[in-house]
Amino acid sequence: MNYPKGIKKGFDNKNITYKNRGMTLEGDLNLTNQYYIDNDIAYIYKKPTPIKVVKAEYNKEGYRVIKEAYYSEPSTTDYNGIYKGCYIDFEAKETKNKSYFPLANIHAHQIKHIRNIEKEKGICFLIIRFTSFDMTYLLRASDFLNFIDNNKRSTIPFSYFEEHGYLIKEKFIKRVDYLEIVDKIWRLS
Amino acid sequence: MNYPKGIKKGFDNKNITYKNRGMTLEGDLNLTNQYYIDNDIAYIYKKPTPIKVVKAEYNKEGYRVIKEAYYSEPSTTDYNGIYKGCYIDFEAKETKNKSYFPLANIHAHQIKHIRNIEKEKGICFLIIRFTSFDMTYLLRASDFLNFIDNNKRSTIPFSYFEEHGYLIKEKFIKRVDYLEIVDKIWRLS
Repeated sequence: MNYPKGIKKGFDNKNITYKNRGMTLEGDLNLTNQYYIDNDIAYIYKKPTPIKVVKAEYNKEGYRVIKEAYYSEPSTTDYNGIYKGCYIDFEAKETKNKSYFPLANIHAHQIKHIRNIEKEKGICFLIIRFTSFDMTYLLRASDFLNFIDNNKRSTIPFSYFEEHGYLIKEKFIKRVDYLEIVDKIWRLS
Repeated sequence: MNYPKGIKKGFDNKNITYKNRGMTLEGDLNLTNQYYIDNDIAYIYKKPTPIKVVKAEYNKEGYRVIKEAYYSEPSTTDYNGIYKGCYIDFEAKETKNKSYFPLANIHAHQIKHIRNIEKEKGICFLIIRFTSFDMTYLLRASDFLNFIDNNKRSTIPFSYFEEHGYLIKEKFIKRVDYLEIVDKIWRLS
């Protein structure tokens, strides 16, 4: 059995600190999604980062090499796919901040997209990790939209996650087992 | 009203040739998907092309410029999203060939993905354009998988599309109105 880096065998949820384990939320989600795929649970993928290619040429081996390109802003959330026949869509972000999540992390296009998916009755949420505490919350799109539609703040306070979010327990292989929470909230069985 | 390039007003389906109108299938699908989004019909997007960045640096203006990168193979199909609450997933390809579609155009990873989505009961299909005739077919994933599972050929003959595929009529704005076909096949209302 392959234990993820930094996790000891005989693991006890209460006594182990995950600090400095060197895993980003993206890394954890990649492992989790791969677990879901390998076990035929869900097919959810991170979309590739949008890159605008300006200059590309063929090298000696006949491969196209990109010589100049720029990162561009995503028009949708980063993750989507299918689970139990349902459309799943989410954005994942980390923050080092201890008291709030800065909304500048979510682009206007992405908010519009989240609104659209919510309207279309897709299962839509955010996964936000507060890296200082190593706490990862799932916040439903409806609660997220409710906050931004009723507040002028440029940040969502940590207390809002405590009150409206769902804490995702970290596990061995399914590092961020968000589908466990999805099952409960959307009552999928 | 903006008529797409090369299409004359007073258009008659039978007499107009679409040859040399300079529109790729990808361009047509982008216009169509944008129409669906703008009219709150469906939220289906092309995934960005996966690119592996090898070297990137900051320029004088503080932007990250990619200096060396390579195209990498996609692990899923290019398009996915949500329509009438359902998960939609498809791959789109053009071929100049007049008598068959070369299967080399669809990677092994993509075939596996199509199989997974079909199993998970997502709405999954291919959109194949035969550019020589300007004919665009929708082929259901089940018919596609049925072909490759029962044939050793490396191509799907054009006749298979005539027999099992659905011809997508070209329109003014919704250039490739594939959802009209999806409605019929999957009986969405």
